[in-house]
Amino acid sequence: MSLIEKNDCLRQMLDAGLSDLASREDLDREDIVRGLERGRMVLLANPGHKDVLPTLIGQPAQVKVNANIGTSPLADDAAAEMEKLAAAEQAGAHAVMDLSTAGDLDAIRRAMLAKTRLPLGTVPIYALAKRYADQDLDPAEFRIEEFLEEVESQARQGVDFMTVHCGVTLRGVRAAKDRVMGIVSRGGSILARWMLKRDQENPLLTHYDQILDIALGHNVVLSLGDGLRPGAGADAGDTAQWEEVIMLGELAKRARRAGVQSMIEGPGHVPLNLVQSQIQGIKKVTDNAPLYVLGPLVTDSAPGYDHIAGAVGGCLAAYYGADFLCYITPAEHLTLPCAEDVRLGVMASLVAAQGAEVALGRPRAVNNDLNISRARKKLDWEAVARLALDPDLVAKRRDKHRDEKECAMCGRFCAIRMLSE
Amino acid sequence: MSLIEKNDCLRQMLDAGLSDLASREDLDREDIVRGLERGRMVLLANPGHKDVLPTLIGQPAQVKVNANIGTSPLADDAAAEMEKLAAAEQAGAHAVMDLSTAGDLDAIRRAMLAKTRLPLGTVPIYALAKRYADQDLDPAEFRIEEFLEEVESQARQGVDFMTVHCGVTLRGVRAAKDRVMGIVSRGGSILARWMLKRDQENPLLTHYDQILDIALGHNVVLSLGDGLRPGAGADAGDTAQWEEVIMLGELAKRARRAGVQSMIEGPGHVPLNLVQSQIQGIKKVTDNAPLYVLGPLVTDSAPGYDHIAGAVGGCLAAYYGADFLCYITPAEHLTLPCAEDVRLGVMASLVAAQGAEVALGRPRAVNNDLNISRARKKLDWEAVARLALDPDLVAKRRDKHRDEKECAMCGRFCAIRMLSE
Repeated sequence: MSLIEKNDCLRQMLDAGLSDLASREDLDREDIVRGLERGRMVLLANPGHKDVLPTLIGQPAQVKVNANIGTSPLADDAAAEMEKLAAAEQAGAHAVMDLSTAGDLDAIRRAMLAKTRLPLGTVPIYALAKRYADQDLDPAEFRIEEFLEEVESQARQGVDFMTVHCGVTLRGVRAAKDRVMGIVSRGGSILARWMLKRDQENPLLTHYDQILDIALGHNVVLSLGDGLRPGAGADAGDTAQWEEVIMLGELAKRARRAGVQSMIEGPGHVPLNLVQSQIQGIKKVTDNAPLYVLGPLVTDSAPGYDHIAGAVGGCLAAYYGADFLCYITPAEHLTLPCAEDVRLGVMASLVAAQGAEVALGRPRAVNNDLNISRARKKLDWEAVARLALDPDLVAKRRDKHRDEKECAMCGRFCAIRMLSE
Repeated sequence: MSLIEKNDCLRQMLDAGLSDLASREDLDREDIVRGLERGRMVLLANPGHKDVLPTLIGQPAQVKVNANIGTSPLADDAAAEMEKLAAAEQAGAHAVMDLSTAGDLDAIRRAMLAKTRLPLGTVPIYALAKRYADQDLDPAEFRIEEFLEEVESQARQGVDFMTVHCGVTLRGVRAAKDRVMGIVSRGGSILARWMLKRDQENPLLTHYDQILDIALGHNVVLSLGDGLRPGAGADAGDTAQWEEVIMLGELAKRARRAGVQSMIEGPGHVPLNLVQSQIQGIKKVTDNAPLYVLGPLVTDSAPGYDHIAGAVGGCLAAYYGADFLCYITPAEHLTLPCAEDVRLGVMASLVAAQGAEVALGRPRAVNNDLNISRARKKLDWEAVARLALDPDLVAKRRDKHRDEKECAMCGRFCAIRMLSE
């Protein structure tokens, strides 16, 4: 039996939406089916998420952008998170992750699922961490049964994809000890603590089959988390990272066999000169599973501007094969993002995705660049705005001089006008 | 006689400041002298610019960032430009160009030269364009004598580097006719119009020796302008562009022989997949003269976010050898930048430069990334701020939660804290 034959929920979503999907992505239906079967594409679409927009991850489908939102212990305002959800959608995000760790997590998640048609992702271990911490207990005391219950519960609620750090191994954790930054993933950190306390292997790894069972029942896409991703450029490509990547590749293969969709989470902090080898290496080791990267940030020195450092790395990463860009906001490393940070983070990732797709010769991207350039040459500002990644901002910045033919940078000395007259 | 022997003003600046320069750049004095002699480095330092900070352009000297400011016909406020000058300095720009085309250009330029120790650049043909346009005359009617007088006058005032579009040829202009965007450089456009009206070669090219004479008398660095730079990704690397690059390479050689310092201006709009070949190609054809790039922008579709599209291209360009990044602000293609745009533009370019230098293994950049990561692991926020590209922003964003050990993104779930306890 093929992956789609095994996965009833996925088949149900494809039966209903494959034509629309093929048309939105400008791909053949057969290519999508083949991509899904081989595990080179995944379709984010839990039938339990009412009106979800089934979203395809995996080039040559359009490179997608995810926005992370959610409460934190120091910034616990559920209403503000709903505003960020709206900001992410408005800016053009293709998916959203609710990383809430404070407040009524179930209520926040349900509200988000009800509010957005975009696929919603979560990190189920956060719910356990909160529950333990609320009782002044160590999150690393969690039991695997609780974890599986949480995954099942969220799957029933309609969560479309979940980060599960199944690839963190004792060997990987030990290899991370000499790092500059150690472990910077919250999930990775909790699991490492659990494992080191007991000198036992990762319970999410030893119970992976149960996780697969739950995922299969709801077409939850497993986002195989990179708990050992490098948190500093100096740690990129080290033993701990590759140990985990190799395990993630094996887990992706097991998922495929079980009929479960999975994607691989990737770095993180990666110097520019290593982005190509990182992306191509991860793709190779994971048999071209969809790759979901966080940045990567090409420098550690840009707090406040990490959306820019991440756009540089993300653009190059997508060019070399990354399929899904998790945004980085200007708040990264400093605080929880506000709605404006969310907007800026999504836009920076969309710039990166567009740059990569132009370089890859994807027709939609190339034609957009061509058409906006033609509009620019005609000084046709309405068309420029319409074709821009952010039409509203173009209109807003033009507003003061909207009755002028040329923009206020050059005015009558407009190079195009001077030569065309 | 060597370049430095011929160039009295340069020798004078080196005699006074070579030791300081070597120490600032962490380079051997001999390497700087050799770089200058070979024309692979230039020293921006007109002795007529009082207290100018002599600034070295040319890797392995630090990659530098320039900020363009100046009035325009639709935004003619000299005081605002002085504020932008302060914003550029405050953000960390290494040089500034005054591109004013409205108001009292001489007064603006003198005020900027008096105000800043940073090297100041100009585009002298703008002064002629304004003079002609103010009398309702076609700027393309300018006489070369007027141009040379303007260059001489600005050189006496202390301008450190000047863009002269000497490489625009009739052949190049004709080759640009079939472009998507044609000619997008204002100087290039005026010259093309001048040439096409008369069917005569570029007067800045035919009178290049006189330009060299003036430059030599004041150690003005000639920034050999790319009047035919691509203004759309679709035009990148076309015949018009390479025709000009070849000419710029010849002109750089003539400058070296005359004892004059010169650098090459580069694109522009360049898809990501062409950045490497563009930069390496231009460097080869111009015998490794310092390369001063505008962006490059990896997509045309990001008006409002061109500082990000430019940071992507600029980071890759500097990694492949570009030496000097002209910033792009969020106002690019839309309007004249405000002071906040100037700040953001400089910061985006500094992120790009830092990312490139980390990838190139430059000790200053690598150590900064390493040290900020170490500080981050210790949750030592003061050190993080001090080592960040923008310390003020780090402090500002931390302010609300400054008494907390962890940042507000993770709070008690801080990965570093959870594992270290």
